[in-house]
This record gives sequence, C-alpha cells and structure tokens, in this order.
Amino acid sequence: MAEQILIREDIGAITRLTLNAPGSLNALSDAMLARLKEEFSSLMQDTGQRVVILRGAGKAFCAGHDLKELRAKRQEADKGAVAIRDLFDRCAEVMQMIPRLPQPVIAQVHGIATAAGCQLVASCDLAVASDETRFGVNGVNIGLFCSTPMVALSRNVPRKHVFEMLTTGRFIYANRAAELGLINKSVHSEALESETMDLAETIAAKLGSAVTVGKRAFYEQLELPLNAAYEMTGAVMVENMQNNDTAEGISAFLEKRVPNWSQD
Amino acid sequence: MAEQILIREDIGAITRLTLNAPGSLNALSDAMLARLKEEFSSLMQDTGQRVVILRGAGKAFCAGHDLKELRAKRQEADKGAVAIRDLFDRCAEVMQMIPRLPQPVIAQVHGIATAAGCQLVASCDLAVASDETRFGVNGVNIGLFCSTPMVALSRNVPRKHVFEMLTTGRFIYANRAAELGLINKSVHSEALESETMDLAETIAAKLGSAVTVGKRAFYEQLELPLNAAYEMTGAVMVENMQNNDTAEGISAFLEKRVPNWSQD
Amino acid sequence: MAEQILIREDIGAITRLTLNAPGSLNALSDAMLARLKEEFSSLMQDTGQRVVILRGAGKAFCAGHDLKELRAKRQEADKGAVAIRDLFDRCAEVMQMIPRLPQPVIAQVHGIATAAGCQLVASCDLAVASDETRFGVNGVNIGLFCSTPMVALSRNVPRKHVFEMLTTGRFIYANRAAELGLINKSVHSEALESETMDLAETIAAKLGSAVTVGKRAFYEQLELPLNAAYEMTGAVMVENMQNNDTAEGISAFLEKRVPNWSQD
Repeated sequence: MAEQILIREDIGAITRLTLNAPGSLNALSDAMLARLKEEFSSLMQDTGQRVVILRGAGKAFCAGHDLKELRAKRQEADKGAVAIRDLFDRCAEVMQMIPRLPQPVIAQVHGIATAAGCQLVASCDLAVASDETRFGVNGVNIGLFCSTPMVALSRNVPRKHVFEMLTTGRFIYANRAAELGLINKSVHSEALESETMDLAETIAAKLGSAVTVGKRAFYEQLELPLNAAYEMTGAVMVENMQNNDTAEGISAFLEKRVPNWSQD
Repeated sequence: MAEQILIREDIGAITRLTLNAPGSLNALSDAMLARLKEEFSSLMQDTGQRVVILRGAGKAFCAGHDLKELRAKRQEADKGAVAIRDLFDRCAEVMQMIPRLPQPVIAQVHGIATAAGCQLVASCDLAVASDETRFGVNGVNIGLFCSTPMVALSRNVPRKHVFEMLTTGRFIYANRAAELGLINKSVHSEALESETMDLAETIAAKLGSAVTVGKRAFYEQLELPLNAAYEMTGAVMVENMQNNDTAEGISAFLEKRVPNWSQD
Repeated sequence: MAEQILIREDIGAITRLTLNAPGSLNALSDAMLARLKEEFSSLMQDTGQRVVILRGAGKAFCAGHDLKELRAKRQEADKGAVAIRDLFDRCAEVMQMIPRLPQPVIAQVHGIATAAGCQLVASCDLAVASDETRFGVNGVNIGLFCSTPMVALSRNVPRKHVFEMLTTGRFIYANRAAELGLINKSVHSEALESETMDLAETIAAKLGSAVTVGKRAFYEQLELPLNAAYEMTGAVMVENMQNNDTAEGISAFLEKRVPNWSQD
C-alpha cells in the first residue's frame, strides 16, 4: 500500500491529521483535497473525538494549490474554466467544513504557510506556529491574486495589513502573524508539538457537548446583527443547560468539588 | 432600608453605578438585572447626565450569572427551559441597552470580570481596568459554554483569540485585554478611579447633544454596508449641524475663542 | 494659470496626487472634492496606471472639511440642510471611489490627518505615515461629531479605540495608529517618501490585471457572508486564470525563471 498523503492518528480523544506530501510542500492537490474532505466528513459524525490537530510533514505546513495540476487544467479547450471552477469549489468546501466540524481544529504550523496554505491556517479555529514560520498570500507574484485565501484571512486580520500582504506578496513571520490575529501564538520550534498538544488536551478535557454546541453558535452569531445574535445564542444557552452534565458541572462548582461527568 | 444592590450616584453630569453585591462577586442575579434595567431606563430619558461609569463593590467587578439561581431554575419540570430562556432574554436586553443609552458608558474594572461579567465589559462603550484584573469566559470549565458573552466579546476581539478564551476557559490579564481591544486601557490599581473619572470628565465636557447623536449613529453604522453607512451618517451630520451650539462651536474655532454653549 | 489645488504627476505607472492647499491644511473644500472626483474618475478608466499615492503639500496631510465653507452654508434659510447634505454626499462619494479604483491607493501621511482627513487615510487601501503624524477625529471638540469619518475608521480599528477617539477628540501618533490598524507603517519623517515609493513600486511591478481584479473582489467579499464570499471569489480565481499572463506566471514559476508578461 502506498504511503498515504493524509495520515490520521487518534491519540485518545485528539485526532491528528498530517498532510503528507512533503515533495510538493503538502500542496492542496485534487487528491489531498479529496482526502481532507473524507476525514472531515468522518469527523463530522464522530463526537467521540474532541479536538483535531492539523499539521504538515516535511519542511512546510502547506504551500497552497498544486501549480502543476492547475497548469494542466488550464490546457483544456475552455482554458480550464470548468475544471478550475470545480477545483476552487472543492477547496472552498473543504475550508468551510472546518468551522462546521463539531471539534475545535488547531493548525500546528511550521516552515511555510502560503496562499491556500495560509488560508488553511486562517480557516482553522486556532493556530500555533513555530517562530521561524513564514506566512504569505503571494499568488500575486505569479499573477494569480489570492482571492479565495483572502476570504479567510480578512476575517482574522485587520484589512490594511491583509491588503498589504495580498498586493506585495511579502511574507510575515510567526510573531507578526500572532500580533495581527492570524494565529494564537508563536513558539520556539522545539516546543511546537508539545504546546499544540497541551492546548488540544486542555480543550479535550472540557465537556464535549458544550464545546460542540458553542463552536457551532460561535460562527453562526458572527454573521448576525447584534439582536439576532443574542436571540440565537440565548436559545443555545437553554439547550446547553438541558444537559445533565452541565447541571452536574454547576453543582460541582457550587459544592467546590470536581464534576462527575458522563460525557455522553 | 436594606443596602441597595445597585447604587446610583450623580456626580455633576456623571452618573456612577456601583454593582453592590460583593458576597456574590456582584453576580447578575434576577434582582441585579432588574435594577440595572431600571437605572438604564431612567438614564435613557435623562439627557442631563452625560456619562455613565459602571463599577463593582468589593473584590471583583462582576463574576457573571448567579449560579445558585440558575441551578434552582434547572429544578423545574421542564429543566428550566422557560425560566432560563427568560433569564437570558432579560440579560441580553440589559446588555443591549448599553449601546442604546444616550450617554457613553465606561466600565471601571478591577479584580475579575468573567462570563457575563466579561460580557458586561465588552458591552460598554469604553473600559478602563486595573492591571491585576483577570478577564475570562470560563463557563466551559463547568460545562456551560459562554455563548451569550461571546456575542459581545467577538465584536471587540479578533476571532482566534476569542475562540481560545471560550474553549480553554483561561484568564487573560488587563494588559493583554488592552492589546486585544477588549478594554481601552490598563492602569495601576491606585489610578483606576482617577483615570476613569478623567476620561468621564473629558467626555462630559463635550457638547452633549453631539455625543448622543454620534453614539447612536456609531452602533447603527457598524451593522450596515459601506454605502448605507454613509447614507445614514450623512443625515446625522446634517442633523448635528442644525444645532445652534454646533454653529457656535465652529464659529468659536474659526475665531480662536472658547465656545459659549447653551448645552440644551 | 493659478496654482492647482490638486496636482497630478505620473511617475511611470505610479500616479501621485498632491493636495495643494497648504494655507487651509489641505481642507476638503468644495473645490478640492471636485478635483479629487475628477482625478479619480480619470484613473477609474486608466488601467495603464498601476498605483496611486495620495499626499499633502505643506505642514499637514489634511485637516478635514473647510469650516469656513461649512459655516457659510449654515447661514442659508434652512440652516444649510440642503447644502450640507449635498456636501456630505459629495464627500462620501469621493471616499467610496477609492476602494472602487482599479489601482491600489496609498496614503502618504505627515503632520496631521484629522476629521475627514483621518477618514481619507482610513479610506485608502494602504497608508504609510511619518512618526510625528497626529491622527484624530476631533470634530466633537467643536460640537460636530465625526459621524461620517467614523464609517471608514471603524472598518479599520477595533471599536472601543474608535469610540474613545470619537468622544474624547484626542490625537494618536503614527506608532499607535499602526498598532491599531489605521495605517500599515510608521516611519521616520526623512524616509516617508522613499518608503511610500518603495511600496508603490513593489505593487506596480506585479501583474496589473491580477491586482485590479483582486482589489475589486477584496472589498466586495468583506461585506458578504462566508459562503457567498467564497462563491464570488471562486469566480474571480477562474477569471484571473483565463489571463494568458497568469498562465505564463505559473509556467515561469514551475520552470524557475522570470515571467515574460505582456501586461495588457
């Protein structure tokens, strides 16, 4: 059996997905997008898993689309109009599955995260990067403006800084990415795995159903006006309170003891 | 007469509201929400008052909902579905009165501001905190995700940082809260009251009608597309210019003298 | 021929517009707004020009509206209701032409940028300022709340900081403006022109059609929900890929050579 281009490992309730095409800097090829969709679809139903870590094998997290495949599609009679539209639809679908997954998804980033690879980081709920990581939306350097990556990026980073990255194609380092809100934290390279795992374990120890209901509401309310956002999240609080484990959590807090959760 | 749980003092044109239930860390109990609504309703009509300061007595600004009351509601036949929905509706109503008040509202924060207490800070127009203050949306630690607090928080703080606070339940200190945009400024504990009062006095010295019309427009335009936001605020500029005090302000500026305002 | 109040210079593919009414601190008078509209209309069609720099002659970038003109309009029978509405409509039109121009627009800022002058900076795609520059929305000091400037400002800067600037009328310096996202970078005064020109040249060297299509999509997607934003930008990627220069850019990258662009 060939080496898989996306490796899934379940470490207790934490699922680790490793992009494993180091020769192409983990490019988001047709095959890679298909495998990501497959694993995300599986995780969508799998509430036993509490947190997902997404990382890359080799020198880089992810360098974006597979330019060889893109060039090949461009050879078609319609200059690839149909095939390229299909590619970007599949890519956007995968990116949008991340906020819809019941589990928080943490990007564990190193090396480079560029173009759709930078979009992948921005699309995750959380991100930790080693301090040497370079981030960029540098498609403009080859004449292909990073229009889809900017959707995710501009929902994380103040607009003038996004615009600068998009039009200059310049890289920023992890410290700057943390200042701008693209990632949560920049850490020393040797601490990257342990810091990411600590964050995952902290979240995995919470009541899973509360995290799931909260994550879903988080993205939904972001796109609503204030009044509608309160209307919707008020209903979510009631739903959350129906859970017997939540009642137990409140009682445990008031009685100054550890909650005894069924976690179902 | 029993000690009031919400104390109102008018210091000239500045109204100071003090949450005064230190034994419960100024929990937003049914009674506290009712008193806040009462005072906010009164201030809604009272354009003589120019600025509101909101602070807490005792060790903390506010630690969120009253968990004993919440647990009691949960005992009802429907697991509290009706009573808890009603609680969150009343809380959301109070939170949304703050941006609708004619006066700017400054949170003067110390000790802790957690869960709905953190939401209260985020809902104020401005916030000054002493540097030892801890902020958190830590409901997740007891299995109750802070879904309503995140509405206010995510309209102030970049999303990955909000998501981290919500899912880890970890606290941040005031310096970090200032960096993230949750508060305006972190100050030494002994300077908290004077710095907050300075800010209040600075604003109270402006033309009250201009501040009122501007505050109302501020939140309205935030939820509009660019073009509609300009359409609406253009009308507000005209309305503002109809004021004789504004005409006097412009003349005074051009004549390099202090304006002689009627302030009516 | 009288000195022009707005000077246009084309330096290769870079157009530099200089507000040239130093006696009024480059106030956005009726005449200045008319000239800006004229030049922006011309640039709207002129895809030969790749980048626009906007700067001010004399001591300041721009101090906002012309208060003498505003006062004169206020003398009319309707207290200027019609004339002032017309002024703010024309101003909002000019501000909104900037994101719609095919060229990225860089504000090169020095001295002061206040009220509608601060709005002008916020409305540009990018901004570089010398470190002594003071920014403010200080209309509140004369009783005229900066309601239209706040539209642009609040789409760049976290809301509590905008609210503070609006209600206190206080200035911030360029370093702080960079931290808050109002500008891209604060530089030493003697480096302002060269740093701005470097940024302009970097962008002007990219494939112009890609930058144009990307800029248009940037502002459009900001106002859309996530799903619609991906739908729209997916179409933009396909459009961008139809360009033969983009195909050449991808091939050049894969063949590790410099692209040979027609740039048409």
